[in-house]
Amino acid sequence: MKHLLQGGDPADRTLEDRPGGLTRRAFLKHGAALSSGAAAMGIAQGAGAQALAGEPWERVYGAGFRGYGEPSRFEQPVQRHIGRPYGDLAPGSGAALAPIERLEGIITPSSLHNDRSHSGTPDIDPARHRLVVHGLVSQPLVFSVDALLRYPMTSRIYFLECSGNSNRNLVPQAAQVPAGAIHGNIACSEWTGVPLRVLLEEAGLQPQAKWLLAEGADSAHMSRSVPIEKALDDAMIALYQNGERLRPEQGYPVRLLLPGWEGNMSVKWLRRIKATEEPTYTKDETSKYTDPLPDGRAMQFTFEMGVKSVITKPSSTMTLPRPGFYEISGIAWSGAGRIRRVEVSADGGKTWANAALYGEERPKALVRFRLPWEWTGQAAILQSRATDEKGTVQPLRRDWLARYAPDNRFHNNSIVSWSVDADGSVKNVYA
Amino acid sequence: MKHLLQGGDPADRTLEDRPGGLTRRAFLKHGAALSSGAAAMGIAQGAGAQALAGEPWERVYGAGFRGYGEPSRFEQPVQRHIGRPYGDLAPGSGAALAPIERLEGIITPSSLHNDRSHSGTPDIDPARHRLVVHGLVSQPLVFSVDALLRYPMTSRIYFLECSGNSNRNLVPQAAQVPAGAIHGNIACSEWTGVPLRVLLEEAGLQPQAKWLLAEGADSAHMSRSVPIEKALDDAMIALYQNGERLRPEQGYPVRLLLPGWEGNMSVKWLRRIKATEEPTYTKDETSKYTDPLPDGRAMQFTFEMGVKSVITKPSSTMTLPRPGFYEISGIAWSGAGRIRRVEVSADGGKTWANAALYGEERPKALVRFRLPWEWTGQAAILQSRATDEKGTVQPLRRDWLARYAPDNRFHNNSIVSWSVDADGSVKNVYA
Repeated sequence: MKHLLQGGDPADRTLEDRPGGLTRRAFLKHGAALSSGAAAMGIAQGAGAQALAGEPWERVYGAGFRGYGEPSRFEQPVQRHIGRPYGDLAPGSGAALAPIERLEGIITPSSLHNDRSHSGTPDIDPARHRLVVHGLVSQPLVFSVDALLRYPMTSRIYFLECSGNSNRNLVPQAAQVPAGAIHGNIACSEWTGVPLRVLLEEAGLQPQAKWLLAEGADSAHMSRSVPIEKALDDAMIALYQNGERLRPEQGYPVRLLLPGWEGNMSVKWLRRIKATEEPTYTKDETSKYTDPLPDGRAMQFTFEMGVKSVITKPSSTMTLPRPGFYEISGIAWSGAGRIRRVEVSADGGKTWANAALYGEERPKALVRFRLPWEWTGQAAILQSRATDEKGTVQPLRRDWLARYAPDNRFHNNSIVSWSVDADGSVKNVYA
Repeated sequence: MKHLLQGGDPADRTLEDRPGGLTRRAFLKHGAALSSGAAAMGIAQGAGAQALAGEPWERVYGAGFRGYGEPSRFEQPVQRHIGRPYGDLAPGSGAALAPIERLEGIITPSSLHNDRSHSGTPDIDPARHRLVVHGLVSQPLVFSVDALLRYPMTSRIYFLECSGNSNRNLVPQAAQVPAGAIHGNIACSEWTGVPLRVLLEEAGLQPQAKWLLAEGADSAHMSRSVPIEKALDDAMIALYQNGERLRPEQGYPVRLLLPGWEGNMSVKWLRRIKATEEPTYTKDETSKYTDPLPDGRAMQFTFEMGVKSVITKPSSTMTLPRPGFYEISGIAWSGAGRIRRVEVSADGGKTWANAALYGEERPKALVRFRLPWEWTGQAAILQSRATDEKGTVQPLRRDWLARYAPDNRFHNNSIVSWSVDADGSVKNVYA
């Protein structure tokens, strides 16, 4: 059967007594097996000398300095997966998903951050852009970008997931596309900006203000209502992303950031915040971003993103060249806070083993999970299952489907299954 | 006198009794001062309506999706500071420094990561590149990049600083250039790769192996000797940087990473690791990267980078538009581990206040420090002073200079001073 290397407790990845399992110690002992397989290969001295003979690039003077770098030409096929449901009629309406199957760690490079846009990316001059805070406040305020840059800042690593992420896995036939084209409407960055509560306190929030309207400067004027509790908690007026100023696709020069909540609520190109007594019920929270239920009603204001995980390596459209050792690697996250545990199965959910975690100390950020695995060459089904600090467990696909009407397109956080066939091909399956 | 807002304990930034200081609470109370100054401005309803009238980009459909994004055209002047001591004779010999004065948080975008190269950036085909592990090992091994990608990975956030960073502040006249052009040979990324000890264990390190030779595939064959203790501790064979594969300037497709040590030892474009009994005394550790002392001798193998900090905002060549509140922001780091404290002075070192820290839980990574400050309009000298978990304190410039011969160019971790003149101009000074 499938052999799953036990990750166990991150501090001690040994589990000598697991049936069919191999320990990390065994992984090292079997280094020779790995070597004689696809990975390293033991070499005679002659072969070693040949490898050291030198390649052409060792004999020519290299390229000069660049003010702003870019990837190697050999990596330039690594691009976002672009989905444009209206085609050339509306080339900026849709989404560009992060190629999570090609990424490692938890920081998403800004150039590959997921991008969901309703009417394209506006070309905003930061010298002209203004943020207005008005409505139920003592003193309406207008902020230039230069003004915002003088306020006290805070930095945090947070994920941003579109609530429509993984809806491509809701069609009847499982798509055979890379993992990122299905589940890549998620990314994670270090964000720096001004706590929203600082600006609200300066404007003087009135006691009857219970909601905010946040509106973008794109031509769709993307708008959402935000409860005041979130605005005074961890909401941020973000100005920087991974050290540099926001990218245009992520809301340059200023966006709202609501950690752990539906990505569309972190309104990009933010032009105003209006304090209100009630939700505004904007077009974007009535015509969409609601979740239809089996009884004909629909859930509205389902802000928090659920606990979720995806194995990114190996994943659909990849091929394992031959039986042997592989590291299973993936990402997990929860809008409710920290990830407590990620389990991995290689037998379609019959048995599970704990993966080692990286970054699990941070709430509302991606966590990287990893687990060594020996593929024996027989068919296998790989799954991951995340549990967050509230104890909420990522649901099975069939259980998730039963909660909603068939036309729901949002908040699919169900377990992802990849099959590995005997020929090593990895496929997207509904298990 | 200079008014310094006390950051105090990060959990409680109040210090009501500080002479001349103002609390964070006061900062909020004085929001109106900030508003009527340069930052926010209180507005009449009419002005608010005007700000909401809409800009041209709100009335046109925005740009379509991009597979690989780039900064806004308004941010494209943000570039690395390039220093080429041999000019066009050797355009890839020198350094490109990170524009730390334009960055925030602790993650440096890979496009702006510092880059010190000895013979330019080689254009390496990852399908042909090999890493050889040989010398005092039971079985010499040759690794393709694809093989390395199958090994167990680890991710960590680490800084990389060139040991020559800040040597531009060793000339007699303080240069009036941006902070990054002096102190920007430092950057911080999330690195992912294979622990070096895994590969050494697979090759079977022999007991008499006490050092490694690490050699790059650039035409200079940049080479350094590394003690075996470091190799078996936190050394990494890095393959990914900030989520994506290494950039060419940072060693694509594979580099050594020695956290906290002189940047040049983290050999880029790594082609071989040779286990040896003694250091190899390569050209790169005899002709340079040694530190001459006042008595005519020189220090060799000074691996660890010292405890250090720099205020990045405000910093040299900037101008404060008018008196009022500013947030002092900067970066701190130590090759010895975690940063315990960063103090800030606005009076040239007479009095100090603790800054709030971000990221201080991580060893050998950048820490962001911040402190609100009221500039009254009088001349001021801003300094920061970092202390690490070993209790080592960043030295004064004059104390640091006394330790070395006048021609030493390495390991300048001394306190940086920026003067603020009455007209708001910020200058680099030796204080």
